[in-house]
Amino acid sequence: MKALMQDYALTLDKLFDHAAKWHGGREIVSRLNDGQIVRSTYAALHRRAKQFSNALLEAGIGVGDRVATMAWNGSRHFEICYGTLGIGAIHHTLNPRLFPEQIVYIINHAADRMIIADAACVDLLEEILPQCPTVETVIFLTDEAGMPETSFAARPYESWIADQSETCPWGGFSEEEAAGLCYTSGTTGNPKGVLYGHRSNYLHALMTLQPDALNLSKRDTVLLVVPMYHANAWGVVYSAPMVGAKLVLPGQHMDGASIHELIESEGVTYSAAVPTVWQMLLDHMKEAGAGFTTLKRVTVGGAACPESLIRTFHDDYGVDVIQGWGMTETSPLATVASPTPSIAELPFDAQVPFKLKQGRLLCNIDLKIVDDAGQRLPHDGETPGRLMIRGPAIASDYYGEETDALDEEGFFDTGDVSTLTEDGIMQITDRAKDVIKSGGEWISSIDIENIAVGHAKAQLAAVIGVTHPKWDERPVLLVELKPGEKAEAQEFLDYLDGKIARWWMPDAVVFVDEIPLGPTGKIDKKRIRERLKDYDLPPPAVIAGPRD
Amino acid sequence: MKALMQDYALTLDKLFDHAAKWHGGREIVSRLNDGQIVRSTYAALHRRAKQFSNALLEAGIGVGDRVATMAWNGSRHFEICYGTLGIGAIHHTLNPRLFPEQIVYIINHAADRMIIADAACVDLLEEILPQCPTVETVIFLTDEAGMPETSFAARPYESWIADQSETCPWGGFSEEEAAGLCYTSGTTGNPKGVLYGHRSNYLHALMTLQPDALNLSKRDTVLLVVPMYHANAWGVVYSAPMVGAKLVLPGQHMDGASIHELIESEGVTYSAAVPTVWQMLLDHMKEAGAGFTTLKRVTVGGAACPESLIRTFHDDYGVDVIQGWGMTETSPLATVASPTPSIAELPFDAQVPFKLKQGRLLCNIDLKIVDDAGQRLPHDGETPGRLMIRGPAIASDYYGEETDALDEEGFFDTGDVSTLTEDGIMQITDRAKDVIKSGGEWISSIDIENIAVGHAKAQLAAVIGVTHPKWDERPVLLVELKPGEKAEAQEFLDYLDGKIARWWMPDAVVFVDEIPLGPTGKIDKKRIRERLKDYDLPPPAVIAGPRD
Ligand SMILES: Nc1ncnc2c1ncn2[C@@H]1O[C@H](COP(=O)(O)OP(=O)(O)OP(=O)(O)O)[C@@H](O)[C@H]1O
Ligand SMILES: Nc1ncnc2c1ncn2[C@@H]1O[C@H](COP(=O)(O)OP(=O)(O)OP(=O)(O)O)[C@@H](O)[C@H]1O
Ligand SMILES: [Mg+2]
Ligand SMILES: [Mg+2]
Repeated sequence: MKALMQDYALTLDKLFDHAAKWHGGREIVSRLNDGQIVRSTYAALHRRAKQFSNALLEAGIGVGDRVATMAWNGSRHFEICYGTLGIGAIHHTLNPRLFPEQIVYIINHAADRMIIADAACVDLLEEILPQCPTVETVIFLTDEAGMPETSFAARPYESWIADQSETCPWGGFSEEEAAGLCYTSGTTGNPKGVLYGHRSNYLHALMTLQPDALNLSKRDTVLLVVPMYHANAWGVVYSAPMVGAKLVLPGQHMDGASIHELIESEGVTYSAAVPTVWQMLLDHMKEAGAGFTTLKRVTVGGAACPESLIRTFHDDYGVDVIQGWGMTETSPLATVASPTPSIAELPFDAQVPFKLKQGRLLCNIDLKIVDDAGQRLPHDGETPGRLMIRGPAIASDYYGEETDALDEEGFFDTGDVSTLTEDGIMQITDRAKDVIKSGGEWISSIDIENIAVGHAKAQLAAVIGVTHPKWDERPVLLVELKPGEKAEAQEFLDYLDGKIARWWMPDAVVFVDEIPLGPTGKIDKKRIRERLKDYDLPPPAVIAGPRD
Repeated sequence: MKALMQDYALTLDKLFDHAAKWHGGREIVSRLNDGQIVRSTYAALHRRAKQFSNALLEAGIGVGDRVATMAWNGSRHFEICYGTLGIGAIHHTLNPRLFPEQIVYIINHAADRMIIADAACVDLLEEILPQCPTVETVIFLTDEAGMPETSFAARPYESWIADQSETCPWGGFSEEEAAGLCYTSGTTGNPKGVLYGHRSNYLHALMTLQPDALNLSKRDTVLLVVPMYHANAWGVVYSAPMVGAKLVLPGQHMDGASIHELIESEGVTYSAAVPTVWQMLLDHMKEAGAGFTTLKRVTVGGAACPESLIRTFHDDYGVDVIQGWGMTETSPLATVASPTPSIAELPFDAQVPFKLKQGRLLCNIDLKIVDDAGQRLPHDGETPGRLMIRGPAIASDYYGEETDALDEEGFFDTGDVSTLTEDGIMQITDRAKDVIKSGGEWISSIDIENIAVGHAKAQLAAVIGVTHPKWDERPVLLVELKPGEKAEAQEFLDYLDGKIARWWMPDAVVFVDEIPLGPTGKIDKKRIRERLKDYDLPPPAVIAGPRD
């Protein structure tokens, strides 16, 4: 028997309509790339988004067409998101920080018909456009005066939408329709396209509002540091208008001073970003002897969160750091380290080990860990296994690939290796591709890295496995020292001693000038492995094997 | 182009599976009607719910069949809810406090095949069952020892499910399927059946988790005072397991002492109930000189919230009262008086006028107010109109009626009259059926009642319209005095003077021994109108007409 409830397709245009109508005066503040601050509102951006929709329609863009943006977080980027998906087209967010050859690969793979770019991206476009035959139109996010010189045809955004009507019908299609396209950051291979739906993004945003996730309310002022090209800024592009939070969009400038200034001048209460951005901010704060007036809490994700970050935010600034885990394929938020009742009762110091974990699964998410044969492993908080995930906002497949990405029970393989407790607390121990297999057992490269980087002289640390005749693989620790520091290998081994199992002890410590980072700031183990492929381990005598 | 996201039907069995699996050890504590406290967990109730499902299947109950419960909040009632909807049957919650003839009407209208009742309901069942031919089976929520004597065939719940298997396939049907049936409380006419769906209840629960609604997290211990037969306890039957909150189910005893004892002994942080229950609790607290150790916040809804309730909770106990509005037809939560940014900054006293309003619409809800011709009225916070509502968890129609309940824009008529501000703050001024039309203008009976009941001598106050030759209708104020009090009409008119428009001034004050309440504690204006139908207004001389 069918329920007698209203038909109401969960299409994303509805939530922006809601924001424009009921939070119409709530501000969206953007910093342009030239530093200028521009103030707007949900109502005003809604009108501009409609103009943009009409410009798209006039250009022959329709349902299912890919419209790419190559831009930092700003109000134009925000309105373009809704103007595109409102008419059923697909908003494809390009990450301008990827390597040019990756961007070319992505544009061609997505067959984007249009690119709308920050003027600052002009050189990158000059380089890649000749290799992107599907792109018919290029628009720069500026007015006539701000147009860069180009060897290709391009138009300024402002005049492109200026004469368009502010009304345009949105929605009316199925909630299963695609709304957005986003490629993974390419840390482990070629970037892969995730095709988000109206329904999936809507449900993800709704789910992330809860206190155990982002804890968002209309009283929040949200600084959106995490870029829109990272899974729609972790869904906040949808969740913030859903509740009518004020949005602050920082543009290109992510340095500590710029971020701190925005937090203070706009009364930011909440923000979300990867650890490296927070580290830059904290470095600046210390140097400048500055503080926070309104900031209460930050979410950290995308990479493991260093302990020092959690402690400094808490001890020096009274800001609560909550770690989250997710991937482009999971929309992205899936686990959040919001404390369980018993952990919430502990003193702060005792909570830190929990805060260092990737968090607890949210409702609408199911997790399991499995061995290489796909068999379930115990949820004992100790056994690591491949992390598998299920839910309404989890990818079923990659765009344009026939990967058959789900297992028999409908779970998606995250490519991460983790432990899981019986009450759903998840801790990443590695990427599947980075796991070190020594004597049939797994060694967590991330665990060793996280500890090693805590050494006072370390700037960055990376652990990779190198082939070993007896144990298959053994860990090697790479250390990039802080500027001006000098150290002996033994200092690091001593530092690790007692903090990790004896048979996890790296067989060698290699000091390097620079640990290579990928385009999104993650350690690039592919490149490290290439560089070390001819590396010879020290003589077996100094090696402590598994279960020694 | 279809998104590449996982198929994941939003069926309610999934969220209870989630709770049992990932919050398995979290407690559900029930007080039985004999006062005994029973402790269980999500995991244990999940197993019992599966046993119940198997018992249902064995009894020939299947998809779409109505299974009625007549029970207070307890763990058996909770597991029955999921055991029923898990197999696609419809959980029909009967309100044992309705008048017997209403219950007969409802059971026959729903064609319930089975009734599962608290043993305390035996006399009621003796009275009504002969008139309910569709009911094949009666089960009492007890074991063999607790079985009441009956003239009809009945079985004890515990032995009925005891031998059943703890595994049973759940779900696998469309999220559009009906999950629950609940009739309105019959304040304005015959009760009407609302047929909830899996999808609608799921989305409603998800939406109510947010900080601007119930603000529920896994750290909460929720005392579920609002009964499950009131729209699934305002959806908390679904939202609490969604986040893994501890649940405390108080059974039949709603008196102040029982409620206070549970709050203290179980460490309750949050609760929800109608104003009359809170009033009983506060009366008890004052008498007993008691306090709260863990209680932080309460939601009040179902009827207007008196100012004294908000102030006493805040001033004397440090508990935040947040008003919500909804109806059986809206699943029910639609607006919540969670403060806007500017109101949150005010001192408490200045926030009270906002807290007295019914609240601000949540995301996924659209509201409008219209005149009698269905034309939109301005959102100026002053003009009252019929309140119309739209959203994915709003009824489209009543069960078994061909009411065609939606207007051309797809909005449902709430039968309430309210004002609306441009930022979505809604204030009920009346029920459409209770509105007093005087000289072509509307007078809000609720406004006058709310003020009059603030008079120190008043226990209850009701305002109704009586026919008037010149003005069509004029308001008359009925007052039930506190025990032992005496008063003159003029004292109340003086008290109102300056607090309401002059032409709203009641034409007469009538002292009555008792203002009749309906079965859910709401003022029964149908009965007042019947009693006063031959009432003659005082001579026109004392009447101040509209715009005088
Ligand atoms: N809190 C966290 N702690 C540790 N690792 C994290 C955390 N959050 C995210 N990650 C890592 O980031 C990954 C998701 O990143 P993203 O989707 O941006 O692309 P990528 O996996 O880096 O790139 P590709 O899939 O193309 O190799 C996760 O699979 C996980 O390995
Ligand atoms: N916070 C509130 N303030 C004032 N009135 C409220 C509030 N919350 C709910 N109500 C009233 O309660 C009504 C919903 O009650 P419910 O669905 O239990 O049945 P009912 O409307 O009383 O019965 P029936 O529809 O059968 O006459 C709303 O329409 C509204 O009039
Ligand atoms: Mg990845
Ligand atoms: Mg009603």
